[in-house]
Amino acid sequence: MNRHEQESIVNADDLQGVCSQLYQKVGVAKTDADTIAEMQVLMDLRGVHSHATRGVPGYVRSVMSGDTNPTPQIKVLEDNPASVLLDGDRGLGHLVGIRAMNLAIEKAKSASIGMAVVRNSKHFGAASSHAMRTLEHDMIGFATTNGGGANVAVFGAMTNSIGNNALSYAIPTEEEPPIVLDMACGAVAAGRIGTARIYNEKIPLGWGLDENGEETDDPSKVAAILPAAGPKGSALAMVMDVLCGPLSGGLMGINKKYQPGDAPPEKLATAHFFLAINIASLTSVEEFKAEIDRQIRMTRQAKPRKGFDRVTLPGEIEWELTQERRANGIPLHKSQLQNLEALAGELGVPVPWKGK
Amino acid sequence: MNRHEQESIVNADDLQGVCSQLYQKVGVAKTDADTIAEMQVLMDLRGVHSHATRGVPGYVRSVMSGDTNPTPQIKVLEDNPASVLLDGDRGLGHLVGIRAMNLAIEKAKSASIGMAVVRNSKHFGAASSHAMRTLEHDMIGFATTNGGGANVAVFGAMTNSIGNNALSYAIPTEEEPPIVLDMACGAVAAGRIGTARIYNEKIPLGWGLDENGEETDDPSKVAAILPAAGPKGSALAMVMDVLCGPLSGGLMGINKKYQPGDAPPEKLATAHFFLAINIASLTSVEEFKAEIDRQIRMTRQAKPRKGFDRVTLPGEIEWELTQERRANGIPLHKSQLQNLEALAGELGVPVPWKGK
Repeated sequence: MNRHEQESIVNADDLQGVCSQLYQKVGVAKTDADTIAEMQVLMDLRGVHSHATRGVPGYVRSVMSGDTNPTPQIKVLEDNPASVLLDGDRGLGHLVGIRAMNLAIEKAKSASIGMAVVRNSKHFGAASSHAMRTLEHDMIGFATTNGGGANVAVFGAMTNSIGNNALSYAIPTEEEPPIVLDMACGAVAAGRIGTARIYNEKIPLGWGLDENGEETDDPSKVAAILPAAGPKGSALAMVMDVLCGPLSGGLMGINKKYQPGDAPPEKLATAHFFLAINIASLTSVEEFKAEIDRQIRMTRQAKPRKGFDRVTLPGEIEWELTQERRANGIPLHKSQLQNLEALAGELGVPVPWKGK
Repeated sequence: MNRHEQESIVNADDLQGVCSQLYQKVGVAKTDADTIAEMQVLMDLRGVHSHATRGVPGYVRSVMSGDTNPTPQIKVLEDNPASVLLDGDRGLGHLVGIRAMNLAIEKAKSASIGMAVVRNSKHFGAASSHAMRTLEHDMIGFATTNGGGANVAVFGAMTNSIGNNALSYAIPTEEEPPIVLDMACGAVAAGRIGTARIYNEKIPLGWGLDENGEETDDPSKVAAILPAAGPKGSALAMVMDVLCGPLSGGLMGINKKYQPGDAPPEKLATAHFFLAINIASLTSVEEFKAEIDRQIRMTRQAKPRKGFDRVTLPGEIEWELTQERRANGIPLHKSQLQNLEALAGELGVPVPWKGK
């Protein structure tokens, strides 16, 4: 079956409404629920399904089980002229991340650069959904996290030894779409291997190793994800882990498998790191944006290699897809919709697309 | 001829003395000359010959031609609580970088994070030689530059469209060697293709494209370097360019080919970006370092993949090589020594290893 036959088309607003209500049903305040749903639907619009509404049932059930706090009271543990250290109160990572980035933006307004480091949070979704929040403030945004434990083999290793930590930069523009880098330090995000599993597709060699340390094209046999560009992605993953874990007074991802008792629980939970850089504190925002726009236009004019129709900018395809899907709907795998519908049934949330 | 037969062994202190005197002969103050020579010999010790004393004749001749300023008067253009914007006065990039990172470190002492952005500088050598300067202050260091114009093909392009911008993070440790990431955003630093040319060796496919856009294994035919990990390295290169060029009020690397007159010369020159993160402002330095040490030891215990003897940390091989080469000398290609000797002859600097 091709992809198309496995999918249904859902309207973005309908999807956002359902997701927000699901979060509200488990105790998330309406404005917070709307925000999280909006961030997740944005990733479906951008085609980043690995970090989109597919995760909603998992997040909601984690609140239901008591593992994730729907109404976190975020504590400021350290407050410096250009930084804060926060305790996320084991809150939904999207919410914790929003509040942390807001604080980084405030620091950057007064100090030129603002840093927010967070421990004791939960998975915060797509790193770019946080980095992009600086754009409307004419700031460069950076976000990273050491959420997912250890599922990448360090360069040269055959076993999992570092997290597949994600990092994102967002750069404001004037007329062109913003430049948005959002990458896993592994060859690929775990969620994309998950996508291949859901669609029953092979994966390229170079993404992962099986349990014998051999490269595999079977997404169900991946025991360890390979690092992007060998030693480069491996080292970047380690650095991102340091910026989140140890810098927040927490642990590296690989040590988070310890049981509470081995270490205080707040050190074992997910950590994040955010930067906001205030362009106006250094140079003319207008000139800055004009130069980025110029780079974007020059890059598009580069001659494509064999196998490429055109040259695109980081985040450009996602930007175009967003416009197209806002107009025509989002294709989602039927099994994902069934998971959402099952949860909606449990929690008494009406689903407008049911029976389509 | 194998590598060994093409090389001579030189003592690190001898090499440093000669390089320092060469810089002094063209007007660099003794302490500055010593510092630059030390940074460059350190890269030979670490095995990073692409960014080491091989570059000395080029730097020195650039001073002789008037293109590089040996006694830069660095101007502070903007001074914020957590950042500075500097004009490097077209000075030797090593010197400009040192002063900029010192200012970032000072800002981080008071504000928690310090940022220094520099325009109108010259090539600053290895990014890690700047990032590592934070280590003795118990800070995390970050350095990047958009030095080299445009020699990397953006992902999907066959022609040069972005700089092979380098970035480095340095992370302090207690007992273990520091974690030092130093990477080009291209598949490889241009200098490593240069090394292959010097030694008359082939390069792996995947490093570069020839003028027809085909991958080549001939280092003399590389017309464009490929980005590391495709879209990831391509986007990282673009972001690093933005942090240096437009954020400093200068231009993106690709636009620096403009002639003065099209844009003010200070916008066309090399730019840098530095961060220093003060660990003590957020958490216990002792606990931080203990956790990094623990990660390092756990990583070494990871089971090696086929083709690997052991698993090493970023910067670990370079650290070991440094100890070994301090004791036994540095192997350098004879043609590199001849270049140094020729310049030393011109400038009247005695060469202790001559005739070996």
